[in-house]
Amino acid sequence: MKKIVIIGGCAAGPKAAAKCKRINPDNEIELYTKENLISYSACGLPYFISGIVPNINKLIIRTKEDFEKNGINVFLNHECIKIDPKAKKVFFQNEKETSYDELILCTGSIPKKINVKNSHLKNIFNLKVIQDGIDIKKMTEISKSVVIIGGGYIALELTEAFVRNNLKITVLEKNSTIMPLLDTEISEKIKNYIVEKSHVEINYIFNDEVEEFIGEENFEGIKTKNGKIINADFCVIATGVVPNTDIAKEAGIETGTTGGIIVDNKMRTSIQNIYAAGDCTENIFIPTKQSVYLSLGTIANKQGRIAAINSSGEENDIKEYFDGILGSMVTKYFDYTVAATGLSEKRAYELKNYINITPITSTIEEYDKAGYMPQIGILTVKLIADKRTGEILGAQIVGTGDADKRIGTIAAAIRANLTVSEFLNLDLPYAPPFSSTIDPLLTATYKLKEMMDK
Amino acid sequence: MKKIVIIGGCAAGPKAAAKCKRINPDNEIELYTKENLISYSACGLPYFISGIVPNINKLIIRTKEDFEKNGINVFLNHECIKIDPKAKKVFFQNEKETSYDELILCTGSIPKKINVKNSHLKNIFNLKVIQDGIDIKKMTEISKSVVIIGGGYIALELTEAFVRNNLKITVLEKNSTIMPLLDTEISEKIKNYIVEKSHVEINYIFNDEVEEFIGEENFEGIKTKNGKIINADFCVIATGVVPNTDIAKEAGIETGTTGGIIVDNKMRTSIQNIYAAGDCTENIFIPTKQSVYLSLGTIANKQGRIAAINSSGEENDIKEYFDGILGSMVTKYFDYTVAATGLSEKRAYELKNYINITPITSTIEEYDKAGYMPQIGILTVKLIADKRTGEILGAQIVGTGDADKRIGTIAAAIRANLTVSEFLNLDLPYAPPFSSTIDPLLTATYKLKEMMDK
Repeated sequence: MKKIVIIGGCAAGPKAAAKCKRINPDNEIELYTKENLISYSACGLPYFISGIVPNINKLIIRTKEDFEKNGINVFLNHECIKIDPKAKKVFFQNEKETSYDELILCTGSIPKKINVKNSHLKNIFNLKVIQDGIDIKKMTEISKSVVIIGGGYIALELTEAFVRNNLKITVLEKNSTIMPLLDTEISEKIKNYIVEKSHVEINYIFNDEVEEFIGEENFEGIKTKNGKIINADFCVIATGVVPNTDIAKEAGIETGTTGGIIVDNKMRTSIQNIYAAGDCTENIFIPTKQSVYLSLGTIANKQGRIAAINSSGEENDIKEYFDGILGSMVTKYFDYTVAATGLSEKRAYELKNYINITPITSTIEEYDKAGYMPQIGILTVKLIADKRTGEILGAQIVGTGDADKRIGTIAAAIRANLTVSEFLNLDLPYAPPFSSTIDPLLTATYKLKEMMDK
Repeated sequence: MKKIVIIGGCAAGPKAAAKCKRINPDNEIELYTKENLISYSACGLPYFISGIVPNINKLIIRTKEDFEKNGINVFLNHECIKIDPKAKKVFFQNEKETSYDELILCTGSIPKKINVKNSHLKNIFNLKVIQDGIDIKKMTEISKSVVIIGGGYIALELTEAFVRNNLKITVLEKNSTIMPLLDTEISEKIKNYIVEKSHVEINYIFNDEVEEFIGEENFEGIKTKNGKIINADFCVIATGVVPNTDIAKEAGIETGTTGGIIVDNKMRTSIQNIYAAGDCTENIFIPTKQSVYLSLGTIANKQGRIAAINSSGEENDIKEYFDGILGSMVTKYFDYTVAATGLSEKRAYELKNYINITPITSTIEEYDKAGYMPQIGILTVKLIADKRTGEILGAQIVGTGDADKRIGTIAAAIRANLTVSEFLNLDLPYAPPFSSTIDPLLTATYKLKEMMDK
């Protein structure tokens, strides 16, 4: 029997708590969060704002009471302010403290700050916690226009939400196009689709940043570094997050170059009996074996589980490890899906002098089903491989067809170091309503193979 | 420059012809078929019968003229009756003959015959070639009832087509449930869904076979071995196919225990300069390394391609092989998808004393998306693994969610010999409209892992 204390209540924390209890019902579990609720789907917030999810309570996965029924002690409104690893104690803002045998840090991430004039104005929002979603939805209902700062996937999901609410939208992105983690020509395709298909005005501003926010008390607009002035009723900052690691660092826990807590494959930090999981950690990116920082709910859930298994069990029993990520992602704009995994071409070329790879890529555009079926979609499939070893390194798939599950197949291939030649004849299921006889994935692979043989 | 003769015009043949020409435009290509058209999607016929595909011409992928524009000589209505491997000649029913440098046999498959009384009656159909589809559609339009003999995936697709046309349906299957290649409890789920959701009467008869067909000139009904009499307006026999290999055998080409032509990984038969591809061949089933016979359009296309590459190129240039199949399949009944790959539990237990495996399985039922999203589906995921090595051997996924692409991911995992432990933390893309944070595939894998560790 152990006393396991978990800090953080969004994804990794609740997952870890439930798993710790399940592994050994005798374990004493305490779950602390600074928020006034736990275990909710932050990823669902854009769909609440859009109106697709009609009730915010639907995003709450399990309540304090649900956990307490299972014998897990939940402490809401407890913000952890200090860890004392020697005394094995944790301290909270409300002067409470607790001791632990094992500690799991799931302190998550915080929005990147924009330090410019007037960033304190009302009606400038982040989209991070439940309350943000509620606040933005309220503004959406009483507003006519919005500025989104940042052009990544949260911005994409918010764009759909705001289009559904007939807002005039300005997106300000410091890079030259949206979704800057993807390759530029793929991002351009997505942007063109959005501009073409939207019934409201969407104004994209690229290669520019906020110089200052305009307004007295309330947000009234932005001035950009290039001197543009955009007036709008409210603003959402969606420029990404950074790991929330202050208390960890103060306790002497090592963080990496990305700012995230360094963990091993058992989710152990540099200090004994302290584990970390989710958005507060940095991870090994499988295709390059380098440390990266990515904030994703899937990673948080998996790591919460692994941290629980390793902290709850006896050392010799442990048979589960977390061995890295591929950065697999999916998002959508109405019926247009954007999914990716592994290395982009861009990133592959940046890295090719540091890690030993010779990137080659193929891009094809194909129907996602037999050409004679109704409701056919079109997919653009881009594959990235290493000409030297033949291994598949990454993929980006966008379009009106089934992109994400195909990315799942590529993720399995990358995870298993499958080569182009091995993937070429992969036996994918086929029937006319589901794919073409030669799936777009394979057509793209054929093209890679031709380049390999040249 | 070579003269390459290809026999067969459905899937593998046209694929091989196009690829041969592409590899070397100087190659002289002759493509022979006994039918009066080439290159069509036989898999699309159920959707033509249902009315989803409004025009039979939509199923024709390329015409004789399309091929001839690319310099491929197409001979319709030429049934090959003899191969003379010594003289390197092929003979046809119309007394024509041709010589070859390389010959590719894509003679396909023929329906299994039911040798019972009155099997010559009118209005008893197979569903194999375009004309069958046209004939069955005509009958569907003027009929009120139908008997389908066989309960596999063609029967399932025809059931949907006939339900859409308000026919009363009887399905006669000699096994104890439909889709007999799947595990029984999965098949039962599919059957229950069909029975529950259909607005017309569907009468399933199991563990029984046709004793005789009833009728004078036209089909009027069947009498079963158990003495049941079923009257109906027409009948479709969907009991599967056998490889069409008579002329190959007569030429001395080796066939295997399954009846299919034996080919190596370059699609070479036992006789020099003769290749075979598609439904006329038998294949290596990757999970067991045994020979199996499966008739699937995806296999035909891939093999046609590999046969073309190997027959057209110079021996030393060849860098592509066909190394076996997983038996991946997908079909659907309205919004209910049925997909599978690799070994079933049933088959794994049958084999476990012949090949060294210790089968374990897990089955879970989960939402296919975040629980709060609209239009959510439910999937049943069954995984089969080898406790000895930890390798995933097979999967069956059925339900109202995205089953087939998830099967594609498992297919990649089996192809790459991924173990349960390696698959466990697979980085699959997640967003609420596409999956749950922990995809059903992973939930099923977690369960397998627990069984492995016991």
